[in-house]
Amino acid sequence: MTDQPDRPPDPPGQHRTAPVSRRRFLGAVGGLTAGAAAVGVPSGMSSLRSPALDRPARDGVEPFYGAHQGGVTTSPQSHTYFASLDVTTDQRGELAELLRSWTAIIANLTSGRPATPMTGDPDRVEPDSGEALELGPARLTVNIGFGPGLFGVDGPDRFGLAARWPVQLVALPVFPGDALSGLNTGGDLTVHACADDPQVAFHAVRQLVRAGAGVTSVRWSQAGFNETLASRGTPRNLMGFKDGTSNPASEAELATFIWTGPEAPAWMAGGTYLVMRRIRVSLEQWDTVSLRSQERVIGRHKASGAPLGKPGELDALDLDAKDAAGRPVIPLDAHVRLASPEENWGVTMLRRSYAYSNGVVEQGDPGRQAPLFDAGVLFASYQRDPRLAFIPIFRALAESDALSRFTTHTGSAIAAVPPAPPHWGCWLGQPLFD
Amino acid sequence: MTDQPDRPPDPPGQHRTAPVSRRRFLGAVGGLTAGAAAVGVPSGMSSLRSPALDRPARDGVEPFYGAHQGGVTTSPQSHTYFASLDVTTDQRGELAELLRSWTAIIANLTSGRPATPMTGDPDRVEPDSGEALELGPARLTVNIGFGPGLFGVDGPDRFGLAARWPVQLVALPVFPGDALSGLNTGGDLTVHACADDPQVAFHAVRQLVRAGAGVTSVRWSQAGFNETLASRGTPRNLMGFKDGTSNPASEAELATFIWTGPEAPAWMAGGTYLVMRRIRVSLEQWDTVSLRSQERVIGRHKASGAPLGKPGELDALDLDAKDAAGRPVIPLDAHVRLASPEENWGVTMLRRSYAYSNGVVEQGDPGRQAPLFDAGVLFASYQRDPRLAFIPIFRALAESDALSRFTTHTGSAIAAVPPAPPHWGCWLGQPLFD
Repeated sequence: MTDQPDRPPDPPGQHRTAPVSRRRFLGAVGGLTAGAAAVGVPSGMSSLRSPALDRPARDGVEPFYGAHQGGVTTSPQSHTYFASLDVTTDQRGELAELLRSWTAIIANLTSGRPATPMTGDPDRVEPDSGEALELGPARLTVNIGFGPGLFGVDGPDRFGLAARWPVQLVALPVFPGDALSGLNTGGDLTVHACADDPQVAFHAVRQLVRAGAGVTSVRWSQAGFNETLASRGTPRNLMGFKDGTSNPASEAELATFIWTGPEAPAWMAGGTYLVMRRIRVSLEQWDTVSLRSQERVIGRHKASGAPLGKPGELDALDLDAKDAAGRPVIPLDAHVRLASPEENWGVTMLRRSYAYSNGVVEQGDPGRQAPLFDAGVLFASYQRDPRLAFIPIFRALAESDALSRFTTHTGSAIAAVPPAPPHWGCWLGQPLFD
Repeated sequence: MTDQPDRPPDPPGQHRTAPVSRRRFLGAVGGLTAGAAAVGVPSGMSSLRSPALDRPARDGVEPFYGAHQGGVTTSPQSHTYFASLDVTTDQRGELAELLRSWTAIIANLTSGRPATPMTGDPDRVEPDSGEALELGPARLTVNIGFGPGLFGVDGPDRFGLAARWPVQLVALPVFPGDALSGLNTGGDLTVHACADDPQVAFHAVRQLVRAGAGVTSVRWSQAGFNETLASRGTPRNLMGFKDGTSNPASEAELATFIWTGPEAPAWMAGGTYLVMRRIRVSLEQWDTVSLRSQERVIGRHKASGAPLGKPGELDALDLDAKDAAGRPVIPLDAHVRLASPEENWGVTMLRRSYAYSNGVVEQGDPGRQAPLFDAGVLFASYQRDPRLAFIPIFRALAESDALSRFTTHTGSAIAAVPPAPPHWGCWLGQPLFD
């Protein structure tokens, strides 16, 4: 494990930038530029590196300390890198030390500093691999989650934490259509990095994995992306449909559906639960389906994103609407119907999906069939209780969803995501060990 | 194969935007914004979607028709997706029809249009999968290359093209340290897409693969990335070093080292040769090496990018410099020395490298060792003659380069990249078939 010296508190304000949406953000850039023009910056300088133009994007800082970890309600960044790890030690002290180390590293990285201060000594191994130098924080968030194995679920209680196990943190059941085996499912710790630069996101996970060498081992990991330039609306997934239209957003919704409440143990106050799934989509098969059939599978219009039968993307689903022949306008097996709160005891979850594309893979016996794209959705869901959200919703989807004919789940993890450290000097998960 | 109706010529000027660097480009955005402010756009509108802010980036168009295909000397975009394909038909007419179809698709996509015009008929299968709607051209370039197999090298002359084989298009030899087997090497056709949006780059390759269904089959493919926000200088690779400092750039250098000359057959006039390698870097091993040793492996200073013994990134290599003890300042096995024109008959090539990160892979026997990152460099090199550039340079590197202790080549392709169609109505590779 990397030696992790204490870091001084951050300068006031450095971690206090409020999350801003990408669009507001670019709006702000415009404001700055206009301001610079107004105070007479020569126009010939516009082709030089301009702090007003590239610094705000790279220098965007998301808070690390606070009530919640980042990357949950943070305005979605353009790139992600996720890793699920096993803890290979059975020493409680080593696990706590790892979390202390990770806390310091994440505090540094999210501020745009190296993981650990560079030594400057050429004969030492530098503690940061250096590929994010000059790249700025780029709105990096990294959240850490605790898998069921940390609490001895389905195994020995290695760390004496079984008594503090939250009942919401169940092992995920096997769903129809799962292709989960070997290392692509489970894990004792999750690391979910998001940033507006793919190199910044990967760099962060790499430094944490390095700091965990000897006490952790990566089970599976996956990079993901969304459109990277200024958004013109809800991003489209690789099926060509707008994805993420109806996420909970108000403080009341977040308090009800995402953050833990009185049911949670004290160490999880302000926490949430992550279910991560890598969902391969058979793009080749999807591309053979007519527009009308695709729209009936999803339950929305492809071009506008509106629910079937409605004109606007943000219009509410009308699950009772019938067509002239008396059939449901939104089919009974449409994805949006089965995933809707109306069909799930009023429960919802916060989805932060990214696309992924891993090259091609051979299906079945090698040499028998042309390789197909290994691409689809890296589906991250955050919720107050997976037993009431992801698990029943996804069980209904796996059994009945028209979309499930096109999908295969090839990666899975579940984790309790504790609150962030409230301030410098505290560490991630500390209340669990106190 | 998708039915490919003829497209009308593009509006004048639509394909004529000169390539602009990302930084100049953002400078131009600043100019537009300042202009908008000067003519009195209300400041409250800055948080709305502003054509002056996000349209130039998404709407950046790289030329498709012309002397050369795009993505060679184009100012590097932030993302790439590469695919190497086999041609599975032996019908010359089907191959030509595929290239006609691909030409129309690439002309459309690089202009920000769907691959093929949408039918609007909900009962038909739409010819474009739709995930790049609203994303704009995003400076997309797609170039197509012809592998040795198309000319019957090491196999039957399926298409009657053997007599037109360019002698530069040799099958790559086996190099020490290659881990190339099965489908991760070779291919009859290459597709190299680059764009300032990962979804735009993948979308392009996906549409071409779809249009080739039945006559082609993907062998291997790989996504890559570079820093995505405004550059602050030469990008760093995952080893933390600046990469791409000394590429040929002047028209004279490009004419000498990159584009074909009088030695080429007429159908390759204005063409170039691509060698693509996916190079896995053992990041975990690299991260255990001291700064001094890393710098001696590369031959440059890590922080500044300057050659060892020099202060500035752009300073020329001094391969004769000795230290006080009489030893070479740049070690004899340093990467920059072995790759330098001085050590390679004065020859150089144009490198367009991207980073890649594919998750983790188990090394050796499953379950015996912790999975390690499958990450490194997607190395694209363009050159006038691979026999004088990539092949001898890389042979020396594979045999002697200190860096080769950390690298494994896990993907490979070579292709003749013909010129672009000169104008609408012509198609890619047409002179080869005339």
